[in-house]
Amino acid sequence: MNTQKQLIFGFHSLKEVIKFNYSLIVKIYISNARNDKRVSEITNLCQKNKIICELVDPNILNNISRYNNHQGFVAEINSPVFPSEKEIDSKLKDLITSRVLILDSIQDPRNLGACLRSALAFDFDAVIINKDGSSPINEYVFKTSVGAILNLNIFYVTNLTRTIAALKKNGFWVLGIDGKGEGSIFSEKFSSKTAVVLGSEGSGIRKLVKENCDHLIKIPISNKVESLNISVAAGVIMYELKKQHIN
Amino acid sequence: MNTQKQLIFGFHSLKEVIKFNYSLIVKIYISNARNDKRVSEITNLCQKNKIICELVDPNILNNISRYNNHQGFVAEINSPVFPSEKEIDSKLKDLITSRVLILDSIQDPRNLGACLRSALAFDFDAVIINKDGSSPINEYVFKTSVGAILNLNIFYVTNLTRTIAALKKNGFWVLGIDGKGEGSIFSEKFSSKTAVVLGSEGSGIRKLVKENCDHLIKIPISNKVESLNISVAAGVIMYELKKQHIN
Repeated sequence: MNTQKQLIFGFHSLKEVIKFNYSLIVKIYISNARNDKRVSEITNLCQKNKIICELVDPNILNNISRYNNHQGFVAEINSPVFPSEKEIDSKLKDLITSRVLILDSIQDPRNLGACLRSALAFDFDAVIINKDGSSPINEYVFKTSVGAILNLNIFYVTNLTRTIAALKKNGFWVLGIDGKGEGSIFSEKFSSKTAVVLGSEGSGIRKLVKENCDHLIKIPISNKVESLNISVAAGVIMYELKKQHIN
Repeated sequence: MNTQKQLIFGFHSLKEVIKFNYSLIVKIYISNARNDKRVSEITNLCQKNKIICELVDPNILNNISRYNNHQGFVAEINSPVFPSEKEIDSKLKDLITSRVLILDSIQDPRNLGACLRSALAFDFDAVIINKDGSSPINEYVFKTSVGAILNLNIFYVTNLTRTIAALKKNGFWVLGIDGKGEGSIFSEKFSSKTAVVLGSEGSGIRKLVKENCDHLIKIPISNKVESLNISVAAGVIMYELKKQHIN
């Protein structure tokens, strides 16, 4: 990622950024048409953390947010810097819970954001994303992830196959989620160090990436439905992993 | 629901409607700027099912879809008719798997659509939605549900509390999903007839509805995240229910 500025919209997203990463914030804008509990909540947080906060005309917010649903709250932040590919190996050794999510070519920013939010919720250590062919971290990802992005180890890599090899070398069992997988999530017993791979909305995990997984499993669903929404599938598998690891 | 017309966008949604509910279709429009496998797939399906299909200028599709992402495919359908409130009692007796989803005031149509898609995927019999304060079944719900809507028993009711009472009378155990619930999905053993209640994105299940649940359970998540996305939470609980019922 470069060090460009980025916008974040909405009350909840702003709260998350102030709470966990206020050092990234350049400035906060609040609509002067609002005058409620949420406004005072944000202005108080700004005061406490010495963040510049400006009350502006809602039309200005509409313009800078390009008519996104900002709810009267916009933050300008410095884009977070993600670790470089070279740092992955050393970072992998620092992981705590040993649960890693690999996202192969997720293109819808809302799906990507929801996956990140679930990854943090289910105590995943890291999310690995292929740089080419995936949605970048933009304002929609921020909004849907409700700021989860800022609390995760996110690695954008050029070659997922190489990263999978590195994970295996570090003792990870790499599991692909695939509708035609031989195994089933209903009966799978997960290794204590597991990396889960999920593929894109339309076409699933790419062939070469799939071939490099240790094992493919499916989430059994009714034949009346072709597939689950990708963020639901990711949520279900991460839930199951967390459940098994704590039991 | 009234018998108004409704639009459906996108290749996958169209395929689902033709596959499962072609009798609802009034007409299909395909962009004449496309000429690929997907076009021939849809036109062949139309021919087979005697559906009127017209090739039109992509600008016409942009207009009628109000610039939604139609991918060159739009269907005009008669809105499906959902059973009336009076029919619920008799319908409840016809349920096969005895898994019911209750959605209290889900306002985002994409979340509602994703919940419906998961409900069908995990073999839920019925989805009960409160009429006032929930998203209606519109084109966004259709698109996100990938047509799942047409294969589910959906009940729009005016009073969820009354419906919950009816479910209890029919032997259902009514379980609310709540961040402050006493029970945990990690240890909960589900009754063979279970109705699960999920509340709105912002504020969860409404007070009176919550009080009428038999039991409240939570999905334990990291304290770094306030909540899961509602469609992910719904997916996780429905997955767990299905898993327990087949085991």
